[in-house]
Amino acid sequence: MTDPARFELYAYWRSSATYRVRVALGLKGLARDETTVDIDGGGQHAESFRRVNPMGAIPALVDREGDGAPLTQSLAILEYLDQIRPEPPLLPADAAGRARVRSLALLLAADAHPLVTPRVRQYLTTTGGFDAAAWRAWQIQWLGAGLQALERRLAAEPATGTFCHGETPTLADICLASVVVVTRVFKIEIPDIPTVARVMSACERVEAFAAADPRLQPGAPAQ
Amino acid sequence: MTDPARFELYAYWRSSATYRVRVALGLKGLARDETTVDIDGGGQHAESFRRVNPMGAIPALVDREGDGAPLTQSLAILEYLDQIRPEPPLLPADAAGRARVRSLALLLAADAHPLVTPRVRQYLTTTGGFDAAAWRAWQIQWLGAGLQALERRLAAEPATGTFCHGETPTLADICLASVVVVTRVFKIEIPDIPTVARVMSACERVEAFAAADPRLQPGAPAQ
Repeated sequence: MTDPARFELYAYWRSSATYRVRVALGLKGLARDETTVDIDGGGQHAESFRRVNPMGAIPALVDREGDGAPLTQSLAILEYLDQIRPEPPLLPADAAGRARVRSLALLLAADAHPLVTPRVRQYLTTTGGFDAAAWRAWQIQWLGAGLQALERRLAAEPATGTFCHGETPTLADICLASVVVVTRVFKIEIPDIPTVARVMSACERVEAFAAADPRLQPGAPAQ
Repeated sequence: MTDPARFELYAYWRSSATYRVRVALGLKGLARDETTVDIDGGGQHAESFRRVNPMGAIPALVDREGDGAPLTQSLAILEYLDQIRPEPPLLPADAAGRARVRSLALLLAADAHPLVTPRVRQYLTTTGGFDAAAWRAWQIQWLGAGLQALERRLAAEPATGTFCHGETPTLADICLASVVVVTRVFKIEIPDIPTVARVMSACERVEAFAAADPRLQPGAPAQ
């Protein structure tokens, strides 16, 4: 028996928001145990998980050295990890830089990703009358809009470096990669995003990103 | 002629995300000039605004004492204002409290509000085949899901006070109020949210919230 890790992550292999937390824990060198919540099978609604997070949403992260309340909402979790373990920083030090990184992150994590979550799929394919092709067009629309908006900013703004903001990964890169991996899971090609692709390649050379690849997680289908 | 204010806010009267920035500037006692961007009339796509924010999105906030780059994404702007003008704080001091407030804020600002923005309406009512009734049902679905999820957390969690977290307004209250004011603009009643309603009443007794009421802003229709 080994001692439990400091963190318990409630997770699913292809969850984009879970991916963000896996990358951040990895960058910070923080160990975790994982419990799978099968959101394709409705596991987020199971009583056993509702006792952990009554909202029935993943990721949920329990800090065993904290007050026991599960941390939820991936960006809030990333900010928490950056506060309790400041190195390496996930945000620049200056206010303008922090605002830029958070804005780039939210461009995907707020404006794009929430549109393509399972609960939206559920609504659109029942009440909304969408068939499978209409749902796929919807996924492509919003993932494409988000990544292409990010592309325009990264290509135009002088603070872009090897990563979205300078030479080390930040919240923005974690969100960028979290959306790119989703496009791969669903075999969606978004055209005309060369800067995004270049930054994604830089991310994938960092162990914490490579290790968080959804295809490598428990429960992922065989390649 | 008076000197220009420190901040220039690109705004629209009923924009929920603009409301958040108005409240935060008010709480911090920071003066602003406003330029209206008529998003009902496509003003976000006008060349004159694209020169300010190539993304064509409001709110955009220019800090005339900053580097000139417009600040975008309301939550990133709120965090920026909290850094450059720390009093009164929009986040608690402790890591767990900050995580809770940010999570409550994102529950609305990421999981709910992006689903009911004009660009989503545009897609659903053209490509998506939604008529006016289907769009309204969609608005009610996601604004209701967001506010009812917030209600469950506020009612259950011991850190809830007069406001979402303790006795002073935070990012979470700003996001709560920003969604409640939208439901009023669209005359949508969300049932079974007594704690949300109680917190909203507390917010409305604070001048910065009262002054940001969409119905009082330039361009709002006569009552």
